[in-house]
Amino acid sequence: MTAGSPGSLMAAEMAEQPDVLARLLVRLPELGERMHTLRPEPLAGTVLVARGSSDNAAAFGRYLIEAASGRPTGLGSPSITTRYHAEVDYTGYLFVALSQSGRTPEIVTAAASARERGARVVAVTNDATGPLASVADLTVATDAGPELAVPATKTVTAQFLALAGLAAGLGSLPPALWAPAPELPDVVRLLLADPHRGEDLAAAWAHHDRLVVAGRGLGGAVAMEGALKIRETSGLFAEGISVADLLHGPIAALDHDVPVLLVDLGGPTSPDVAELRRRLASDGIPYADLALPHEAGELPEAARAVAATVRLQQLARAFALRRGWDPDRPRALSKVTATY
Amino acid sequence: MTAGSPGSLMAAEMAEQPDVLARLLVRLPELGERMHTLRPEPLAGTVLVARGSSDNAAAFGRYLIEAASGRPTGLGSPSITTRYHAEVDYTGYLFVALSQSGRTPEIVTAAASARERGARVVAVTNDATGPLASVADLTVATDAGPELAVPATKTVTAQFLALAGLAAGLGSLPPALWAPAPELPDVVRLLLADPHRGEDLAAAWAHHDRLVVAGRGLGGAVAMEGALKIRETSGLFAEGISVADLLHGPIAALDHDVPVLLVDLGGPTSPDVAELRRRLASDGIPYADLALPHEAGELPEAARAVAATVRLQQLARAFALRRGWDPDRPRALSKVTATY
Repeated sequence: MTAGSPGSLMAAEMAEQPDVLARLLVRLPELGERMHTLRPEPLAGTVLVARGSSDNAAAFGRYLIEAASGRPTGLGSPSITTRYHAEVDYTGYLFVALSQSGRTPEIVTAAASARERGARVVAVTNDATGPLASVADLTVATDAGPELAVPATKTVTAQFLALAGLAAGLGSLPPALWAPAPELPDVVRLLLADPHRGEDLAAAWAHHDRLVVAGRGLGGAVAMEGALKIRETSGLFAEGISVADLLHGPIAALDHDVPVLLVDLGGPTSPDVAELRRRLASDGIPYADLALPHEAGELPEAARAVAATVRLQQLARAFALRRGWDPDRPRALSKVTATY
Repeated sequence: MTAGSPGSLMAAEMAEQPDVLARLLVRLPELGERMHTLRPEPLAGTVLVARGSSDNAAAFGRYLIEAASGRPTGLGSPSITTRYHAEVDYTGYLFVALSQSGRTPEIVTAAASARERGARVVAVTNDATGPLASVADLTVATDAGPELAVPATKTVTAQFLALAGLAAGLGSLPPALWAPAPELPDVVRLLLADPHRGEDLAAAWAHHDRLVVAGRGLGGAVAMEGALKIRETSGLFAEGISVADLLHGPIAALDHDVPVLLVDLGGPTSPDVAELRRRLASDGIPYADLALPHEAGELPEAARAVAATVRLQQLARAFALRRGWDPDRPRALSKVTATY
């Protein structure tokens, strides 16, 4: 790989992740404290809003925030405010708005509107000087540095980690789910040093034009993000889907031409993934398990989710190179959403 | 079409929809009253849970419930309770559980757990004798009669309509969004009498193996349901996607081989659909607009969404017949989810 060659920028930004995560880990206790202070009493609930990769980070964060805060937590639809102009009372709510650029117009509008209507607004962004920060009670800068490749990588894993830290400030979490994991940067470093697994899988599945990435719970959010990254970076049509939904219905659309990549984080949803694995095997549908370094086994599930997300970035980049796309500048994708 | 021929069962059940909707329309005022009585004061928020087609009905209902109740409304992830065993306090919450069979084990478990933790539980189901009804404070029987074809049709549009009626009991809705629409059954009848539009589109796009169905707001929920119906019924890989998300990212994965079906309900998200339409045209990507009878233009947007859902059922059935699938018994799909 040389500077300027296709995908060199994405690779360089992926390689920064151990440092970005290490810097953020140090700040998590303080972020948790600030979140604890911000929590409304009584807390009615939490709403997260985002688009694109940030939406997958939100799906990851909603599990941790609901579990820690002990109050229902969901993903909001900005259009209820920005298009239908519904008058929604956010008294007692935390409203977490995620935007890597801090400038996604619709997210800024939805956050400003929620704050006017009583929400305490937390902005999670890589640009603390953008308009999103200006409408927030608390701004969490992911501090990942400029991201120049179009596919978001280090800003996404930083969002995942920031959300875990924010959730921990809202209550207690089982250590198997999340605890500050100082080993995470080293596990990600190990994983980045071994790009062959991604390359091998991309080679094995290069002749397919569709792919399913399946997981459940935190693994479901990872699967959605991995599938989006593969689609955006390589043009290969990867669909992220919940294992539960896949067993319920759309498995009808699977066949021997559509391999399934299983995201098994080894947590309480692991038996569901195992059930799907058995069913794919008995139906003769090709599948593979996303492989993580042995050392990832010691991490809490939420930290394993971050490592798995990096593995899927590698896979996305490998698919792109194999398909003749430049991972740094895939077609038709702009960095900031155009919706208002 | 003769009895016993492929797709005759699905067609017969689709044809019952005007009567099912007409019966339900008569009951909506009473359902609204009961919902009004059930509403906790103060209301903290509403959570809806469902799987498969019911999940798309939930996505439709969440807009109307949030707009009418004036409090945040979101889709829950049952695994937070059923897998991660998080202790979530539902005091002040409405919890709307949707299951056509009334027997989806995970939905029943999640509803029972939410009620134990303080939620007032509403069951929307086609079988008021199932276990879901036994854990609910209020059971809304959609009363659509037995559904024997595997793809859910009349039970889905009945859920849509029931949710509109329940939402109306929680507050006021702009008449352009929802008002009881006695004309709806006749519009659906007109639409069913004209299957040619679906057949023509299926013929024109039969050589594609992928399809995108795009909408936003209520039209987004319709697009998700239409895409699921096409996938389940015909095996054609249709992806439902929000217009906002499509403009933000995954449009990278679109090309001349993937036509886009636009669901434009003519409401406040219509300009977003128009923006996507312009972009598709300038990029040379094939697209079509989902056509509704002229008379649908007089309906409130939520009722148009019901009519559009029926149009997409026609299209799903037409794709299946053209691809040699039996719409009544597509492959690998079971009627009740296997997830617990």
